[in-house]
Amino acid sequence: MYSARVSLPGSREIAHLQLSDGEAHSGSAPVVVEEPLEIRLGDRPIAVTMRTPGNDIELAMGFLFTENIIEDPGVVVTAAHCDENQNVVEVRTEPGAKGVNPPPQRNFYATSSCGLCGKASIDQIVTRITDVAQDATRVRASVLQTLPAELREAQPLFQATGSLHAAALFRPDGKLLCVREDVGRHNAVDKLVGWAALEDQFLLRGAVLLLSGRCSFEIVQKAAAAGIPIVAAISGTSSLAASFAEEAGQTLIAFLRGREMKVYTAPERIQVD
Amino acid sequence: MYSARVSLPGSREIAHLQLSDGEAHSGSAPVVVEEPLEIRLGDRPIAVTMRTPGNDIELAMGFLFTENIIEDPGVVVTAAHCDENQNVVEVRTEPGAKGVNPPPQRNFYATSSCGLCGKASIDQIVTRITDVAQDATRVRASVLQTLPAELREAQPLFQATGSLHAAALFRPDGKLLCVREDVGRHNAVDKLVGWAALEDQFLLRGAVLLLSGRCSFEIVQKAAAAGIPIVAAISGTSSLAASFAEEAGQTLIAFLRGREMKVYTAPERIQVD
Repeated sequence: MYSARVSLPGSREIAHLQLSDGEAHSGSAPVVVEEPLEIRLGDRPIAVTMRTPGNDIELAMGFLFTENIIEDPGVVVTAAHCDENQNVVEVRTEPGAKGVNPPPQRNFYATSSCGLCGKASIDQIVTRITDVAQDATRVRASVLQTLPAELREAQPLFQATGSLHAAALFRPDGKLLCVREDVGRHNAVDKLVGWAALEDQFLLRGAVLLLSGRCSFEIVQKAAAAGIPIVAAISGTSSLAASFAEEAGQTLIAFLRGREMKVYTAPERIQVD
Repeated sequence: MYSARVSLPGSREIAHLQLSDGEAHSGSAPVVVEEPLEIRLGDRPIAVTMRTPGNDIELAMGFLFTENIIEDPGVVVTAAHCDENQNVVEVRTEPGAKGVNPPPQRNFYATSSCGLCGKASIDQIVTRITDVAQDATRVRASVLQTLPAELREAQPLFQATGSLHAAALFRPDGKLLCVREDVGRHNAVDKLVGWAALEDQFLLRGAVLLLSGRCSFEIVQKAAAAGIPIVAAISGTSSLAASFAEEAGQTLIAFLRGREMKVYTAPERIQVD
């Protein structure tokens, strides 16, 4: 019974059997597209991530930056899909560029949050974390309260499929800079960071990262590597995300709902009004 | 302001600043624990996954089985935490055991769903997928409708922290076999499969896997490798999960809510009553 046709970018219409109150009838509805993306640095495969196609160049740029494989996006000369395969992006840097750290050969599977403890990961990205700790951004609690509604309105794929993570970057005055959606929470964040890296890296300074769901270690780590000082989640946080944010001097907010929020770390960046 | 003390297993009480309607006061609430687990086959590190501690042996056994690294859990002679490190589990097999496939050396990061396409992954686990396609299990729609409520009642950590994935195994008659919770959706599934592998692998035949959230490629792939014929999600599914399930002959249900459900593949296993 499986059949598919292309609809909105990032979603695909798929046939299903709808069972309602004991009645069965045929239906069709959009589901989120999930496909693998291989990210290459030059000719070398660096990572494979299951992602929602779209903004792939941003995703590759963001991934390489937040994983500290490319310390400065300015050294990238080209980033493009492979001609033969739209599920491969190749990123090339200036010959002899500094701050390019391809991962060592590994003999085991690892997720992108593969540090064996938060501490080891913090050491790897210590330079940019120092920037985060010193970031003097302030944001009003009343502004933070308006952000979830803005994010919801800017999630067309979620509205169509009910099955996506979203992440958004805001300025401290509440202006929405960019929204990205993906089957992977970490991919949505990498797409945002990659967007800023391609647009104007300065946008990340003083930014607020808002997550449609919960916050994990991987997310605060990526945000810190990108220089983002404030991370807010509509759902909860994990213990390791909170301890990482504490050590990084990053402001971590969870359960941002209505006029309520829990601030776990660095509350001095939030002005109660 | 960060401070923590241990509370329920899998959760930890953490201090926060509660902002409510412009008022700030100190609070404390449980958050889900997230820590890395390194899984070793003998002395060799195979994977690192960010997980909620608890049922680690099940997680390691389930991971090695669903990733096809150990084809038959019966060849495992010991599986235990490292004495020095509770975030490492070592699994040892009989010397010369067949069907033990440690992954090749890789020079790139990969998630456990690192197949470059669903097809390649299907080929890897083709033997057990054949079992799934031939599984003649039938389940009544009226039974499926009762499962989400049972899952919710069996999620103590989610109730405490609001930030966890849960997965449960049911018999086709609706009897709950096992529930597991984790910060990672795939870990919750691996813990369930590992539980069955340690208990009685036959429990996986004819089982229904229920997910508290959405379904991805990685989940149906793991379920098929474990021989589970029916996967149901309370939220939506991705395109690749549906195309994998179709090819594997697995029944995939999404949006299982109240008296409604969408059946994407192999609807012949569901009896409308």
